[in-house]
Order: sequence, then structure tokens, then C-alpha cells
Amino acid sequence: MIKKLSLAVIGGTAAGMSAALKARSLLPNLQIAVFERTNYVTHGSCGIPYYIGGEISDYNELITYTPVFLREERNIEVYVGHEVTEIDLNKRIITIKDLQTGKIANNIFKKLVIATGASPIVPKIPGIDSPLVHKVRTIEDSLKIKNDLEKGFVKKVVIIGAGFVGLEMAEALSKWNIEVILLEALPTILPRTNPVLVKLIEDEITKNGVKLYKNTRVNKVVSDIKNKKAEVFTEDGKQFDTNMIIASIGVRPNSQIAETARISVGKTGGIVVNEYMETNIDNIWACGDCVQMQHLVSGEPCWYPLGPTANKQGKIVGENVVGGKVSFSGVLGTQVTKIFDLYVAMTGLSEIEVQKFGYDTALVEISHRDKASYYPNRQNVHIIMLINKSNGRILGVQLAGSVLAALRINVFATAIATGMTVKKLAELDLAYEPSMAPVYDPILISGIIGLKELKRIRK
Amino acid sequence: MIKKLSLAVIGGTAAGMSAALKARSLLPNLQIAVFERTNYVTHGSCGIPYYIGGEISDYNELITYTPVFLREERNIEVYVGHEVTEIDLNKRIITIKDLQTGKIANNIFKKLVIATGASPIVPKIPGIDSPLVHKVRTIEDSLKIKNDLEKGFVKKVVIIGAGFVGLEMAEALSKWNIEVILLEALPTILPRTNPVLVKLIEDEITKNGVKLYKNTRVNKVVSDIKNKKAEVFTEDGKQFDTNMIIASIGVRPNSQIAETARISVGKTGGIVVNEYMETNIDNIWACGDCVQMQHLVSGEPCWYPLGPTANKQGKIVGENVVGGKVSFSGVLGTQVTKIFDLYVAMTGLSEIEVQKFGYDTALVEISHRDKASYYPNRQNVHIIMLINKSNGRILGVQLAGSVLAALRINVFATAIATGMTVKKLAELDLAYEPSMAPVYDPILISGIIGLKELKRIRK
Repeated sequence: MIKKLSLAVIGGTAAGMSAALKARSLLPNLQIAVFERTNYVTHGSCGIPYYIGGEISDYNELITYTPVFLREERNIEVYVGHEVTEIDLNKRIITIKDLQTGKIANNIFKKLVIATGASPIVPKIPGIDSPLVHKVRTIEDSLKIKNDLEKGFVKKVVIIGAGFVGLEMAEALSKWNIEVILLEALPTILPRTNPVLVKLIEDEITKNGVKLYKNTRVNKVVSDIKNKKAEVFTEDGKQFDTNMIIASIGVRPNSQIAETARISVGKTGGIVVNEYMETNIDNIWACGDCVQMQHLVSGEPCWYPLGPTANKQGKIVGENVVGGKVSFSGVLGTQVTKIFDLYVAMTGLSEIEVQKFGYDTALVEISHRDKASYYPNRQNVHIIMLINKSNGRILGVQLAGSVLAALRINVFATAIATGMTVKKLAELDLAYEPSMAPVYDPILISGIIGLKELKRIRK
Repeated sequence: MIKKLSLAVIGGTAAGMSAALKARSLLPNLQIAVFERTNYVTHGSCGIPYYIGGEISDYNELITYTPVFLREERNIEVYVGHEVTEIDLNKRIITIKDLQTGKIANNIFKKLVIATGASPIVPKIPGIDSPLVHKVRTIEDSLKIKNDLEKGFVKKVVIIGAGFVGLEMAEALSKWNIEVILLEALPTILPRTNPVLVKLIEDEITKNGVKLYKNTRVNKVVSDIKNKKAEVFTEDGKQFDTNMIIASIGVRPNSQIAETARISVGKTGGIVVNEYMETNIDNIWACGDCVQMQHLVSGEPCWYPLGPTANKQGKIVGENVVGGKVSFSGVLGTQVTKIFDLYVAMTGLSEIEVQKFGYDTALVEISHRDKASYYPNRQNVHIIMLINKSNGRILGVQLAGSVLAALRINVFATAIATGMTVKKLAELDLAYEPSMAPVYDPILISGIIGLKELKRIRK
């Protein structure tokens, strides 16, 4: 007999479980089943580098709720280790594979939420399937990495891909006093990031002993699994011996299952949803890292696999599946990454994007202390701001500095969300306290300099 | 012969010197004279507690420019130790007293900027003029306090007035390992601050050994100057022996000189200026702690003696005195105070003010961690938010917590400045990074809870 589900949710991380929990809180008797491919739900993958690095000693701390809790206290049927392999739109059936037993089951759904998330892209090169090669996404990934580290055989690690995950892993692995080699295929790391900030990041990792090689594309991995050794070969003829390889060249939305079912997928690779997070199919919603989003500044489709967005979207879906009509307005892609002692933050459009979308922009670069001139341990906040020349509005901001710098990104995110001009930014009544801000906050300075730059250009 | 001045500026701190320097940068040949009552210019009084407490060892660090620098490098005539005692509007003359020699001079001015700042209110009680009683406003004040502390005779200090200055001084003086007694005349400290936050402040100072007495009004000081001892008597019959008394019951605008000259002074005690910082008299501007401001939320007159406002207003006046037409939009009174390890921040209207102005408000109180649930050393951010029931707009926010909490006040200040609703606040795309923010930032939580509260009320 085919089981019938009132609400089926594919994926039990941020978006999927937010949807399930919100629906539960609104409809206490709704039958809800959540299928999660890994063995964990509600885990924060942003915390993985901290678990690897040792700031967090127990991986259970990365997990908000256990399946047992969700079943017993929230009456949500949670199936971990279960992968949904197919969606049949005609029969309204999902096919579920128990990954442990291999058993296949078909369930009829009335309503469906797709929250399949994103997966690391693994470079297609010989030898990449070696057990010495690790991804960084799931709790299982992090357990494998930590397990190898704890065994003590890892003297050298090669990280393939110097994106933000690669950089965070470089820091985390450095804490094990092992040699960390970071390989980037492109001529520059972080192409969305302003070169001034990239230079700060490169200086920070180099200062901390990480060996960065740019323009270095890996084309082969040869493993000696018995002796826990591998050789990493690159296109330009370099060769690195190592005991651990981290593949972190990027992530992509898990939208294949939707695409196969003919649910609409956009040019970003994410599932297309409207403002209510509805797909093009009745009674099927999607949310989180698997969906395409709309950028609040450009109005263009974009894709940012970020936790706060996934959580917010999941909650909205949870409300809408039980009859609500809540909308999601869009994203700015606000994000912060900590790389050793340097925080890098961004919100809104980057230089690549303003070019792509044809904005006529002014770029302002400032560097200003994060505390009063006389206060000890002050550091500079480096701010790059992009301004729409035609109307003075802020299009995007990237900054780097201490944690005090990083928190300032939220003011820019708030300003951009309201379409604020640099003039208005310069007028904001912001706080001054010698230990956390100079009398002219760096945010105000960026507004003042931005205004000056616009005046200069318009002359 | 009476000297003629193209631009006379009364007061050489934040506002006055900002005006002079801005005017200078725009008109290299303008004759500018600045008269400053104390012996220092461009000093930051917000840094004084840090100088007393020892975080800053040299008071010169509190000073941005010396008179010599300003004369030689900026061609500004700076007269320190010179008090302007009278403004004659008919003759366009200011009377200046050299405080060292007692000499009086009259100068004709073409344009005048009044930036006389604010002064501590000294309670009118017998014995308050004792040399053991100190104010906290000028560099001279701080030198006297530190001098007495360094002599080593101070074993006990009594601080009269538990406002933010009194609290900051309590912390600063605690660093000298002396007994700190803090007396507040009113039944509660900080009447503009929400009681939940007041409780946190009281706990913080008490934990750090400060003895706080509320409802304790001082009515007499008896000094034994030779033996560096004093007795502080209170209305309710208490008696405190001490070696140092700090009078910090409040500050008021130095608008007397303007009022005497019949320049318009408002009900807040501050000089009335329009949006261009012009007084009611042609070619006379006023800026900084001596002026009345307009509140950005209520539109009502208000008075906040705060550094960033003084600096911004000064700069605007500097532009307008040389023919500019720049406006100052108003204030939110955004401020942060550090009290031992607790930061307290506020922006917009307080509970007292929303009552006074008749807003129908909802009050939201939340307490949420400032980092991810699993990240070490997290602390709670306590947020009190006032919402306009009729339109959902945020009227004011007060919060307390770590420095990470304090910096979040700027997001609220930005939100309030744009008339943001709690709904929009809850939708903001803010940054998540485990070491500086949970996935739902406390700011978002306050928006979510605010929205819920409005829905509950409207039902």
C-alpha cells in the first residue's frame, strides 16, 4: 500500500525543517514527513570549520534538534538517511530510497516542499574519488575530516579551491599545526571581491602560514591509500604530496530532481519560485539553497546559498503550505566570513554585477579606524562602496577588518534595502563610543567620501 | 582700536572647530578667530573617563589639534583661555576676557558662530565649591581628578549623580582600587532608560564593587581641605566620608550668553536654529551642544549633547558661513555608553517621550544571544523596542549587552531614520557568522516578535 502524506518535505536542514516546524506550529494535526539524505537534521554547516578547528568540540552542538525530539515533541515524521530520488508530478508521488537498506518506497503527497539544498561541486579529475579527498558540507563530511586529523597521520593538507569555504578550512586546519596548501585554479581568488580586500585576505592567510598558489589547476590525484598519502598534480606541472585533500571549488543548487520532474529551474541553476515560494506546479513549494532568488537591488535572478535566507524562506513556506500568503521580498546576499583574524563582509551588488547589469557607478574606497583615535587596539575598517551615479543610491558594499568592522555590514544592508543615497548615509545619526567607534563612524566617512566623489564627477 | 573679525567662533571643541576648519578649507583667505574658554581645543570629552581609568595614559591623546598647529598649519587664530562674555547685536561686537590676565577686549564681527557647548550642572548645596569637588567636562577637570588620584590620598570617592557620566566615572575610578560610592537623588537611575536595562546596569556596577544609593539626595558637603577629607550629607540623614567628590548630576546648554543678547533660546534651553543652523539673527549661526535640535521621529524640539551631532553641525555651519546652503536634518539621539563590561545603547524615542507625545505604542522586549548557539563566549543582547501601533513603524530602541550588541544600535538608527516598519525590519538581509551573529540576528528577532505583537494587538 502506498503511504499518503499531507505534507512531504524533501530536506531537513535550515529551509526544510523551518517549513515543517512553522507548519506544525500553525496546524497541530497536519501530517508532516521530512526526508533527509544525511543522518542529521537542523545542522548548521556554517559551523563546520569551527568544529574542525576545535572551537567547538562536540559536533552535536551544531545540531539544533534531533530526529527523536522532532518526532516526539513536534510530531514530525523525520526520516534521516532517506533520499528522495524522484518526483512524479502526474501521480503526485515521491520515490524514497532508504540509503542504509537500499529499500525503495513510493509515497503520495498532497503538498510538497523541496528543500534539497546545495552540494559541493567536485572537480572531474582522475583520482578525485579517493577516500583521502573530502568535501565540506554535511556533518558526515566533518566527522570524516576530524577523524583523519585525530588519527595524527595528516602532516600536509591540500585544499582545492580558495573560495570562502576553502579559506575558512585553511584557518581551521592551520590550528592542527599541519602544512596547509591552498590551490586556486583562477588567476585571482574570490572574483566577486574587490582586489583591495582580496589583498588583505591573501596577506592574512600568508601571515598565518597558509601557502597559496593561484593559477594552479589540479588535474590529477594519485592516492596511496594504504599509507595515507596522495600526490596532487596540477596543469602547470606542479606536484604536492599530502595526506588530506579538501575539495572546495564551489557549491551548486540541488535542483536536478526538480528539473527531471519538469519543475521549472532558472538560469542560476536554482528552482524558480514566485514571491510566495511557489514553484510552477500547484501545491509544490521550494525554499533554501535549492531555489533561485531575486536580488533586491538589481531585480535580477541570483543565487546565494546562505543560512539566514534559507531559514526565512522555510518559515514563509511553512506558513503558506497551511493556507498563508506570506511573501519573500528578495536578497542582498549579505554575508560575513572570518578568515583568521580578518573579517570580510559584503552586501548588495559586486563590481562584476554592476558591470554585468550596466549600472553607471562610482566606486569609493576608504580605510578608517574602528575606534576613537586614542583608544587602544584600534584597527582599520576597509570599505568599498559602489554608488549609482544617476541617483546616488548605494548599490553594494564590501568591507574588511575586525569583528567591529564586520558588524557594520548590517547598517549598509539596511541602507541598501531602503534604497538609501550616500547623502542620507552621511547624515545618519550613528553611535559614538571610543571603544567601538570614532566620532565619525567609518560608515559616515564612506557616505561623506561618496558624496564628495559624486560632486566631483558631476562637475 | 577695535579689532575686526570676518568670522568669529565662540568655542573651540567639536562644533566650533569643525566650523572653523570647514570654512578654512573652503575659503583659504578668510580671517577666522576662535575663542576657547579652556586651555585646549578639539578635545574629546567622551574620552575623559578612559583617561581617568588609565586606558589612555596621556591626555594629549584626547586632543586632535593644538592651537599652534591650527595657527601655523590652518591659519586659524586660536585664543585659548579666552572667554567671550557678551555679544552686542547692535554694534556686532563680542566682548572677550583673557582669563589669565583679566584683560577685556572688544572685537567687531562680520559673521559669528556660537559653539559654546554645555556645562555640568552643579547642585546648589553648601560646601559644593570645595576643591575636593570635581566636575567632569574639560581637560582641566580631568587633569585635576587624575592629579589627586596620583597623589594617593583618595581612598573613597563619592559620585553625585548616576547618569551616564556618573556611571562611566564609577568604572574609571574603580580601576584605582578605591571605594566608589554612587549617589542618585531620584528613586531610579537613568529615567529615560527601560527598567529591564537599568537592572542590568545596576547589577553590573554592583558586581564590580560600586555602592549605589538611590533616593539619596546630597544636601551638604563639609570639607577638611588640609587633610583632604570631606563629609557628604544627604537629605535622609546619611553621611559619607570621602577624599574626592564628583559632581555629575547632568549638563545643560551654554546658551546664557545668547539669551542675554536676545538670540532666541528654546524650551530645551538650547539656542534655536533653523535647518541651516542659523539663529534668528542674521549672520549668526549656532551649533553643537548649545543648540536645540529637532527629533527625527517626533519632529519635536530636543536636546542631546553628543559628539557626532556637534561635529556634523559644525561642519555644516562651516560650509554655510562661506555661502553654502547645507541643512541638518535632525537627530535620533543615538548613543552608546560602556559601563564596565556592559554596553548600553539607545536611539529614537524613549518610553517617557512616546508617552509625552501621545504615541499609541507597543513595547517589545527580547533577549537573544549575540553569536551562534554553539559558539563560545556568547552573551545576550537585550533589546527593548517601541513600535507605533498605528503604522508599525519603529519609534525607538534601547539595548544592552556586549560590544557586539552595542554596534547593532546603528542598524536600528538606520531603520528608524528611514521610517522602517517592524515587518520590513524582520525581512532585512543581515549577516550571519557564528562568531558574531546567530542565524537569526537579534535584530531580526526583535522584528519578528514586534510583528507578532502587532498582530496579537490588532486581533
